[in-house]
Amino acid sequence: MRIVWSTGDPNGTGPEIILKSFRKLQGSGHSFLVAGSCSVMEYYSRKLGLAVNLECLTDAAMLPDAAGFGEGVLPVLSIGEPETVEPGKLSADAGHIAMESLRAAAGLCDIGVCDALVTAPLNKEAIGLAGYRETGHTGFLGTMFGVPSPCMMFADNVSGLKVALATIHEPIERVPSLLRTMNLDHFLSDLADSLQMDFLMASPRIALLGLNPHASDGGVMGSEEREILSPCISRLSSRLRIEGPFAADGFFGSGNYRNFDIIVAMYHDQGLLPFKLLAFDTGVNVTLGLPIVRTSPDHGTSFDIAGKGCASERSFLEATHLAITIAENRTQTILHQ
Amino acid sequence: MRIVWSTGDPNGTGPEIILKSFRKLQGSGHSFLVAGSCSVMEYYSRKLGLAVNLECLTDAAMLPDAAGFGEGVLPVLSIGEPETVEPGKLSADAGHIAMESLRAAAGLCDIGVCDALVTAPLNKEAIGLAGYRETGHTGFLGTMFGVPSPCMMFADNVSGLKVALATIHEPIERVPSLLRTMNLDHFLSDLADSLQMDFLMASPRIALLGLNPHASDGGVMGSEEREILSPCISRLSSRLRIEGPFAADGFFGSGNYRNFDIIVAMYHDQGLLPFKLLAFDTGVNVTLGLPIVRTSPDHGTSFDIAGKGCASERSFLEATHLAITIAENRTQTILHQ
Repeated sequence: MRIVWSTGDPNGTGPEIILKSFRKLQGSGHSFLVAGSCSVMEYYSRKLGLAVNLECLTDAAMLPDAAGFGEGVLPVLSIGEPETVEPGKLSADAGHIAMESLRAAAGLCDIGVCDALVTAPLNKEAIGLAGYRETGHTGFLGTMFGVPSPCMMFADNVSGLKVALATIHEPIERVPSLLRTMNLDHFLSDLADSLQMDFLMASPRIALLGLNPHASDGGVMGSEEREILSPCISRLSSRLRIEGPFAADGFFGSGNYRNFDIIVAMYHDQGLLPFKLLAFDTGVNVTLGLPIVRTSPDHGTSFDIAGKGCASERSFLEATHLAITIAENRTQTILHQ
Repeated sequence: MRIVWSTGDPNGTGPEIILKSFRKLQGSGHSFLVAGSCSVMEYYSRKLGLAVNLECLTDAAMLPDAAGFGEGVLPVLSIGEPETVEPGKLSADAGHIAMESLRAAAGLCDIGVCDALVTAPLNKEAIGLAGYRETGHTGFLGTMFGVPSPCMMFADNVSGLKVALATIHEPIERVPSLLRTMNLDHFLSDLADSLQMDFLMASPRIALLGLNPHASDGGVMGSEEREILSPCISRLSSRLRIEGPFAADGFFGSGNYRNFDIIVAMYHDQGLLPFKLLAFDTGVNVTLGLPIVRTSPDHGTSFDIAGKGCASERSFLEATHLAITIAENRTQTILHQ
């Protein structure tokens, strides 16, 4: 498989974990490409003593052919070069590079030059400073590919845990109204389809968490369970293996989560709090429902340790392995159709 | 110390875990009393083969003197007897018994006959059916003692984790407006005072979690961090050791929570999801800010396993041990003032 890595924020730990990952993955039989800035990759390679045979390309037409990008060489397709690299610094210039790196990398998958995209972390504040309306990977890719609501899922190969988010980077204040207006039936059907296509799960066991404390205890604390979640589960249960809504704290505390293939959380922290406790180093973020394959590590830019050489590439490596697996699964699904 | 146990819902696992706990605690040098129904305690003792020397009292005036309630005997002060006991059944009658058990037990602490109250779980729906306005322990005790907002805290003696909730059993929809209208400064100052009085912590390190995903990433997803939480931390930091607001998922995932004595979550699941994952069997619920000492296990009525004999008394035992410790600490605090 041919994997493209976007660098994320050049002042974050993205370039470092890309270099570390390539040193472990070269010779794996897969080929890798960076969409980003040559000067940034060279800066971190030199500063951190991470020797990698980088090859700077200024035009996609210079890319080696589809068979692969060359053994032992990491090509960097330059999407522009920042004025300076300052590890840990929030800047509009860095936000611009991060977003253009993502756009170019996703484009390479779109035209079939690459089979999967793995994105290193960006900083939403920097992206905002650079003037972009979409400040996150998932939203940006959704707009780019005309998918209104791609699904954000987190997967951990070590524990087997998978968590999908019904709402993503939204203020808590907006979550209840979003749940009322979104088409949860479609969301869950699409999720089941994606699990079949990307993970070869014919009939995944789906758990839906409640929105409110104790899943509202029969309506005592909130009405969304009774008005939205339970009716949705009833409608879908004839064709999907779906249960809930579960009281989120007890669901995880009791270990009940181990009985399901996928857990659907109503909002960001409800899914990510347990996920990061159960799978911090090895957790991977997957965007489902896009025409391209996209994964990323489940951590942020880590500005506090950028440029110091101590960032762990563990999650990025797992994200790359999972991207390869999903790309292979999709090939298999298509072959069998 | 003289501990009073309320039975909670007679159709739940409360009476069972009380009997199991007494069998382990008799001879500990402390004395124990149940406020509840004699027929209920006798029913579970017989049904589950949990032999305990129960002594039924129909009037508080029959209580043994303040020195203790007798070695090897568990007195039960009857607050009324239900028509039937049906393990696992939701009923208004059971809700009534649960609430009157709580009222009587708290009253015994109020008049100094007991030193601390440990409450077995009730069912909010049953309490609602019985016609009570307050359906939870914490709210009921707050009203009873004229404390508008008692603080719900969870403590785990094994991991050392302590989590306090800024809002408790509230629909998610109401949480942002509650945070805007509550006096968070007072809440945190009272919390620090309680930790000093009840846990002898002279200067606890306090962590405040953000409300929104990523603690709003600098205002990109929500405004409560910038408008409420950060200003509150600034105001208090001259006299309290307080930090935040932290992105909740990363705060737990990275292990940063280990650097603090107490973590303040903005809403129920944000605190309870990580707490129950890190401390399920040994977690204890403590109500801070009341004139009486009150703890409880961190689980519910467990209707699904009621009457089967397989309920674990672990958390209830921990709650009883902690109630004894807090009661002793309060005595010490008063002696030193």
